[in-house]
Amino acid sequence: MEREKGLLIVLSGPSGVGKGTVRKEIFSQTDVSFEYSISATSRKMREGEVNGVDYFFKTREDFENMIKNEELLEYTEYVGNYYGTPVDYVKQTLEEGKDVFLEIEVEGAKQVRKKFPEGLFIFLIPPSLTELENRIKTRGTETDELIRNRMAVAKDELKMMSLYDYVVENDKVENAVNKIKAIVIAEHCRRFRVEQSLKKYLGVE
Amino acid sequence: MEREKGLLIVLSGPSGVGKGTVRKEIFSQTDVSFEYSISATSRKMREGEVNGVDYFFKTREDFENMIKNEELLEYTEYVGNYYGTPVDYVKQTLEEGKDVFLEIEVEGAKQVRKKFPEGLFIFLIPPSLTELENRIKTRGTETDELIRNRMAVAKDELKMMSLYDYVVENDKVENAVNKIKAIVIAEHCRRFRVEQSLKKYLGVE
Repeated sequence: MEREKGLLIVLSGPSGVGKGTVRKEIFSQTDVSFEYSISATSRKMREGEVNGVDYFFKTREDFENMIKNEELLEYTEYVGNYYGTPVDYVKQTLEEGKDVFLEIEVEGAKQVRKKFPEGLFIFLIPPSLTELENRIKTRGTETDELIRNRMAVAKDELKMMSLYDYVVENDKVENAVNKIKAIVIAEHCRRFRVEQSLKKYLGVE
Repeated sequence: MEREKGLLIVLSGPSGVGKGTVRKEIFSQTDVSFEYSISATSRKMREGEVNGVDYFFKTREDFENMIKNEELLEYTEYVGNYYGTPVDYVKQTLEEGKDVFLEIEVEGAKQVRKKFPEGLFIFLIPPSLTELENRIKTRGTETDELIRNRMAVAKDELKMMSLYDYVVENDKVENAVNKIKAIVIAEHCRRFRVEQSLKKYLGVE
């Protein structure tokens, strides 16, 4: 049977919702075969980090060249450093028939949607705004004003739900992970993805 | 949060593919909460059968009145007896927010698609035509000619894949069941189904 192309799975959601935790749990499971897309960054390598494993570490100049040459699927600047997704790795892995998983901020997801409209966009939401505030508070040492700002940003980000294919509530990490896994299984059964090769294979064209 | 309407799940596929076996396995599982839609029939009750459990048993005249009054979501006549799905039960159960599961022939599924285009249509396929022939053969005492006829019908039915949302290969019952369960979980996360009530609930309209 003809090899099906891989799926580009994009997990995003408002700041503080727990995207990173969900992503880590997914990749700790043995029955998951997504490829994790390694980001490029212009920030300095930290102790214990490995180039090509944690990030592709680039100079600021190199990163800006990647932007100019459209070698990034999406990128953002955060406290003076660039972060982005190299497009080559993504394209190549999809061609090999493997699913690629991105966990990115809503702004980046918006950029990816433009370039890969056929991607599978999953929006993670908190069980409630109160719970989101709790998560932002327990994260660290933010001042009240910072928390208010972050909540305002998160509320704006929640509105961007409309750009996504699926919405998953992160009430418990385990539940969210199971739903995301189900979504990927289901998408591989979507008729429009498999019809042509199946009809050919079964000889009923 | 506003109650989401239930999903109408329609499992169909060519004759001999194993729809009934898959349906029975699904309903034997404890983590499944679909309501099984009980069919109406004009055939005689057999020993051990219970009215309202196995079927709603009707006289031929009553059944024809149901057809006339459009009380059936779909119906078909098979060796002189009518079989059909009463629409009232389906509508009421969906309104209660419960998922309804139908396992029907492709001809019936076509009728349901017209009346419930928003239903979730899943097409079960055999791993190969050879395997389908084996399954038809091992079923019973069909003659060679009957088997050839049934294969021709099955091939025609396979072409109707195009009318479905999902295609699931019935290589092993367990695999098919897991995929169908994943499809239902995923569909409940579809953004267009949940967006309005979630935005309202989160206060980010």
